[in-house]
Amino acid sequence: MSVDGSGAPDGPVLEHLDEAECLRLIAPGGIGRIAYVGRYGLTVLPVNYALHGGTIMFRTSQDSQTGEDLQTGIAHAEYSVAFEIDEIDPAHREGWSVLLHGPAHEMTTDDERAAVEESGVEPWPGGPKERAIRITPHRIVGRRLRQS
Amino acid sequence: MSVDGSGAPDGPVLEHLDEAECLRLIAPGGIGRIAYVGRYGLTVLPVNYALHGGTIMFRTSQDSQTGEDLQTGIAHAEYSVAFEIDEIDPAHREGWSVLLHGPAHEMTTDDERAAVEESGVEPWPGGPKERAIRITPHRIVGRRLRQS
Repeated sequence: MSVDGSGAPDGPVLEHLDEAECLRLIAPGGIGRIAYVGRYGLTVLPVNYALHGGTIMFRTSQDSQTGEDLQTGIAHAEYSVAFEIDEIDPAHREGWSVLLHGPAHEMTTDDERAAVEESGVEPWPGGPKERAIRITPHRIVGRRLRQS
Repeated sequence: MSVDGSGAPDGPVLEHLDEAECLRLIAPGGIGRIAYVGRYGLTVLPVNYALHGGTIMFRTSQDSQTGEDLQTGIAHAEYSVAFEIDEIDPAHREGWSVLLHGPAHEMTTDDERAAVEESGVEPWPGGPKERAIRITPHRIVGRRLRQS
């Protein structure tokens, strides 16, 4: 049936995913995109992340745009960001996407640094000024597009 | 050399890309992510896009979240959004990302509908209420991460 029940021919179906399914899909980690309103306006950048303890963890260089912006934005307050993960199969026009919202927090204490190590996430553009960020999701939504 | 000249061991290098290189990278079209502040807050969603006449074009279902949000946001005014495209090679920890900013505009006139057809972009979750959106970039930035 059609996605909106309008009687259109069978075609792609857009389904909403529940939170448990979203967490299952993003559990392996990999590439996600952090989005935030920073000094350059609305910014979206890919990062290599891990899901650890129900939170998103990634590492970034302090000298990179993400590092600078997050440093400015987070400061000592919590800074709300969005994080998007997807897996798309262009050949079959199928795939899913998950979107998280929540505060970003710089991980600086010994316990937090230990948690980053446990998560196994590695910084790609690392360096001596590397910093680690945790996003604690307050809202998780997802959708899947599949061919009917 | 290290990316920040600090004398750290050779490692990944983060390069800024100029606008011409960004446009060359995104010219083939494919999957990009539109980001905007909509009724659900900061939203990031993957869409299938084409680059046509120097603008980003994509189609979305009016019934989808993107369709609803953009309809609300665009209304009769211009609505500024971000659009991100990337290509990442996790095995080699290399890749690039491009970020555009500009107004989103719903394409409704005959000329605009003809331009959408010319662009060749197809709606994945189409349907009878499909709508076409054009983003006219006012700012284009990009970066490439490569191993030195």
